[in-house]
This record gives sequence, structure tokens and C-alpha cells, in this order.
Amino acid sequence: MKILVLGCGLVGRLIATDLARDFEVTVLDPDFGALAALSGAVPVRTVAGSALDRNLVAELGRDATVICGAVPGRLGFTVMQSVIELGRPFVDISFMPENFLALDELARAHDVTVIPDMGVAPGMSNLLAGWGARLVEEVEEIRLYVGGLPLRPVPPFNYKIVFSADDVLEEYIRPARYVEDGQVVTVEALSAVEELDFPGVGVLEAFFTDGLRSLLGTVKARRMLEKTMRYPGHASQMRLLREIGLLDDQPRSILGHDLGPRKVLAQFLFPKWKMHPELGDRDLTAMRVVVQGNRSGQNIRYSWDLLDRFDEPTFPHSMARTTGYPCAIMARAVAAGMIHRTGVLAPETLADNEPLFHFMMGELQQRGITFHETVTLERQPCR
Amino acid sequence: MKILVLGCGLVGRLIATDLARDFEVTVLDPDFGALAALSGAVPVRTVAGSALDRNLVAELGRDATVICGAVPGRLGFTVMQSVIELGRPFVDISFMPENFLALDELARAHDVTVIPDMGVAPGMSNLLAGWGARLVEEVEEIRLYVGGLPLRPVPPFNYKIVFSADDVLEEYIRPARYVEDGQVVTVEALSAVEELDFPGVGVLEAFFTDGLRSLLGTVKARRMLEKTMRYPGHASQMRLLREIGLLDDQPRSILGHDLGPRKVLAQFLFPKWKMHPELGDRDLTAMRVVVQGNRSGQNIRYSWDLLDRFDEPTFPHSMARTTGYPCAIMARAVAAGMIHRTGVLAPETLADNEPLFHFMMGELQQRGITFHETVTLERQPCR
Repeated sequence: MKILVLGCGLVGRLIATDLARDFEVTVLDPDFGALAALSGAVPVRTVAGSALDRNLVAELGRDATVICGAVPGRLGFTVMQSVIELGRPFVDISFMPENFLALDELARAHDVTVIPDMGVAPGMSNLLAGWGARLVEEVEEIRLYVGGLPLRPVPPFNYKIVFSADDVLEEYIRPARYVEDGQVVTVEALSAVEELDFPGVGVLEAFFTDGLRSLLGTVKARRMLEKTMRYPGHASQMRLLREIGLLDDQPRSILGHDLGPRKVLAQFLFPKWKMHPELGDRDLTAMRVVVQGNRSGQNIRYSWDLLDRFDEPTFPHSMARTTGYPCAIMARAVAAGMIHRTGVLAPETLADNEPLFHFMMGELQQRGITFHETVTLERQPCR
Repeated sequence: MKILVLGCGLVGRLIATDLARDFEVTVLDPDFGALAALSGAVPVRTVAGSALDRNLVAELGRDATVICGAVPGRLGFTVMQSVIELGRPFVDISFMPENFLALDELARAHDVTVIPDMGVAPGMSNLLAGWGARLVEEVEEIRLYVGGLPLRPVPPFNYKIVFSADDVLEEYIRPARYVEDGQVVTVEALSAVEELDFPGVGVLEAFFTDGLRSLLGTVKARRMLEKTMRYPGHASQMRLLREIGLLDDQPRSILGHDLGPRKVLAQFLFPKWKMHPELGDRDLTAMRVVVQGNRSGQNIRYSWDLLDRFDEPTFPHSMARTTGYPCAIMARAVAAGMIHRTGVLAPETLADNEPLFHFMMGELQQRGITFHETVTLERQPCR
């Protein structure tokens, strides 16, 4: 069976590598160097070109059992639309700003299964939230925390980029949505900073980013929030840069030249935020999903913790591992015929598929990615 | 008697206004608007032009009893040199990066009295340090703290510019020097942050800047340091911007254009840091000078605190008041023949002139600027 992977970045190459063990994999990316490095190490076919080239994608993807998307967020929606029109199943990790559920009708019309946001968060966070919501009668609260962090923080930034540089600063500008009393509330990103102690990492700070996405419409909960975790101090640094105006995307006249402030900042910041694995830089992924609700008159709380570290022998970043493997495993599930529904299926809506859920958790565990589940029960207090 | 004031910025216009009560004052500045605003309010003669125009300065300053300098720091040294060559007495507040003592010989050769750095700090801080050093037999320690601050801090910056915008960020880049065990030590500016409680203001932070300047050579002390005071958090914000590279002065290629990073940052930051007195912005100047030493076997500690606020009736910034009045008063002292020495005389070297010191303190007090002196005595511990 054939699989087409769109994108050969940190995550795309990991997806391709995983799938190449059992499928004929073709990888499409405009970056010759990235393709050459991958095809030198793994038996994949590589094609240099753009995922926006519909004819090329059609030609390469026509007979693919599944297509995987791992392109930067700003390309995600366009690419998803053209894959749907091609009529092939699609599993995607692009962090697109648009609402992918707008393509649901198109996907049904083409009788295509599309699983968007299928990374770690969004992705596994959604699947676990959906899974947890099914385990209770009424969802009181869902809390998602996730962070991709350097293993050894170095001041003053205590941060390294572990996913698309384009998307990092964007996260701090997009208004964040959470649910309070069943209603969606919109706040500034980077707000409501709280400290939490993450076992194995230490004290982290967590702040609102817009990570609930499809969950806002698919899961009913009294309270629901998503926060990004960083080493303490990051939020105030980013708020400062935002307040100065350096996170703005709109070009403006800067010393007489029409420039985007965020691009200017990026030129200074990203070289300092770049991970250098060859110099010993290592990253970790920390995630916590908490679902609290009522069952049989009791208050029950499920919590899943993930702590994943840079994978020395195979050398991919932890964030690439935790993002790429869920996508690759979901592509395997689609290829194995485990999903029968069509349309754009947010990961949380797949939680009613028990074999799929256990397949995902088992395959992740085989790849060294383990979620630790804690269940806490208490008799519901009288109200 | 005639006085020429070079510069019609926040401080220059205050110096001119003070001196116009008793002298024929001419003000030179390239900014028509600033000159027009001043001459509309105060009986001064204004000339539009540059202080770097030697012929113009010579023509205007030829028969001046004193010339006052209030130009941006980067022009200070050149302007001082040309005034010396003109042979007129000079009192200056330009925060120049160069060592003005390099002009001492030239000033002696021209038989001219030059008093540089004659603002609040540097300026009154030097005079008080020199005064305190004369009150003890051996100087153990001199500590100078100074800050120009908004009266009501507004997050996230908690800061407004109260002196030359050009010089604010420069202060955070220049290596700072202090004295330990009699030796000059050089450290990064913004380092060694300490918290201190300043009566009437509250908790402030203080960090090294390069404010000792001439004191490093003129006063012998076992320990000597100068720190800038800000509301807590400022140092870490500025360190972050410095670490990103945005305080660098050297132009570099930014998105394909040759631009100075500090100028780029300034374009974003300064509009947010601008004081708007018409919208209610008010500033304060806080300063503390501590001189500790031994006298007659006792440990004696002199401390002078200044807390000056925005002067509502006459509308100048506090920092303009506290910087401009010492300069204007010193010009008056020179005009009155109170200083007989020639050369470049750092303010601390004038501390042996008791009538001058008392004249300065008395005139400042008449203008509402009062230093509160505290003397603490303790028997010297056995060592």
C-alpha cells in the first residue's frame, strides 16, 4: 500500500520514516536538502515540489491509501481542501488558523475520511479529552496543559523552538478561547499565568493559548481550558515583546522600509531559540490532560500525564516524536480500515471507537510514548 | 551679563528660563518649534542652528559670561572642545561617552573654567560624593543611586523617558565600572540587581550603570558604586532586549535593509515610553548618595536623599528640574566669580569650595529641590 506524506520538516520526516517500515512512502517538499537527507537514510521516494501544486499532489496521491499532511499552519487549509477534492483519506498535523470543520461537508460529499489536528496537542489531547468525556455522565471540567521545552533551560530565554518557527509567535497573538459555565470566553493569549509542578520537570508556568479549537464545539463541559507550559518567565517576556509591538504581523514603515515587525523580531530571536542537537541540545514534551465529572453520584477525575524526552538513538526531537507518531499511527489505522465514518473528524470524535483508542495507545507505547493515567474518586459533596 | 545656552530640549529650556531672570540669554537649537515655544514664554533670544557649527557658536558666545551645554551625549565632547577653544567658561550637562578630562589640558591652555556633568547624576551626586569624602579621614564606601521614574507606574513597562531618548538605551549597553578594594572592576550594565525601599516611593530595584565616570579617578574609596533605580522588573526587560540583540547600535542587515537594531527598537518603544504631561503623566526623581568612612576612630555614615516630583505650576518634568537647576546655578556661580580654578573640573573636585557648596544647596532649596541629610555614627568595631 502507498502513502503520500506532504512536508519533510521535523515532523514530516518522522512520519515518513515510521510509515516506510510497512508502506511504499512518497514524500513531497520543496526543500531538496531535507529530501536528500531523508532518502539517504530511509527507503522512501522523494519529490521536490510544493504541496500547493494541486496537479502534482493529484498525480502523487491518486493511488495513495492515505495521505499525511505535515505542512506549516498557514498552508494547512488549502492543502486539506485539495486532498479532499482528490478523494483520498487524509491525516493531518498542520496547525491551521482556519476552522477545518468548514470542510466537513466537502469531505462527506467526496466520501472521504479526514482527521485533522492529529498531533500531540492538538491531537492526543483531543482524543484523551473525548475519551475522558465518555467515561463520565456529565463533564465538570477539562484541562489541557502542553509544552515543548528544552531539557536544560538556559537563561534568559529558557526556551528553544521545537516546532514550526512560523507558528510559535503566532500562538501568542491569536486570542485564546476557553469555556466557563458552558459559555465560550475569549481572552488574550499569554494570560492567566499559573505555576504548576510537573513531575520529572519541576516548576513550570502555564498560560492560555488557543488550543481547544474543535473541542469548543464537539465536547460539552461546564469548564474547559487549554494552557501552554513553559519554564517560568516566558509569558512575561512574550507579553513584553507583544506590548512593544514586535509580534505584529502586519507590515509597517520601520525606519522607512515596509517590514513586518514579527519577521524583524524573528530574525533576531530564532537564531537564539534554535535547537542544536549536535551541540547537546535536547528537548522534552510535557502534557497533562485532566477530565473531571460525575458518575453514579461520585466525583471522578481522570488525569493523563506524558513526559517524553529527546530520543537519543534515532535522533528526532521529542516534539517531533510526540507530534509525528500519533499522525503516523492514525494513518496506519485508516489504512487498516479501522475508521468507517467520513467527513472531517476531529480526534475527540474518534474516542467512541474503542479498538482505535487502544490501538493508538498501544502503538504509541511501543514507540516509547506512554501516558500515565491517574483516577481519583470522591463521593460528590452535597450541594 | 550674557549667557549662551546650547540646546533647547527638556533641560536646555529650563536652564534658559532660570537664567533669563537675571541674564541676557541666547538659546541655540536646530528645532524651530522648540525655540518658538520657549521665546513665546520667556524673554530670551533664540537662534536656529547647530551647536556643531563652530562659527555660529563663536559668534553667539564671544561675549558670553558663561556658556551652558545641554546637547545630546553624542555631541557633547565636540561641543565642549569648541567652547574651550572659544575661551569662554562652560557648564555642561551632556552625558557624553568620552572622557571629558582628556580636554583638561586644552582648557588650562585656554585659561578656561569647564564644569562637565553638572546635572543631578552625574552632577549633584558627584558634588555630594566629594563633599562626603572631605568629611571623613578615609572613605570606606560611596554608593550612588538615582532614578527618573513615572509617578504612577503603568505595566508592563512601568517606565517613561525623562531624559534624552538617545541616551536611555545607551546606558544599558555601556559596560559599568565600580570600585572594589580600591580597584576598578568592569561589569555588564543592568547587573547586580538589588531591591531597596525608597521612602515616599516604595520598593525599587537598582542595578549597575556606568555612572561613576570622573569619580573613578578623582575620589579614593575602598568601595564605590553607582546604580540606576527603576520600578522592579525593568532590568530583566532591558536585559531581554539586549540579549535578543535589539540594543545593538551597529547597523546590520535586517530583512535585507541595513538598519541599526537599537533605532528599530526605539521606533517601537519610545512612543510607548513618552511622557504625556497633558494626559496627566507626572515624573519623579529619586536619588540617594551614601558616603561611609572613618573619623576619629568612629565609623560615620552620611546619606543624602532627594525625592523630587513634577512641578505642577511651572510644568517642567522633575528630571528636567533636577538636572537643569544644578547647571543653571553653577553657571550663576561662575558668573559671580565664585570659581577661580581653570581646567575641566569634575563637580566632585569643587567640593572643597564651601561657599560654592552652600550656594548650590541653598539655591536648589529655593527652587524646591531639597536633599535630606542623615548622619549615622558608630564606634568602629575592632578588626
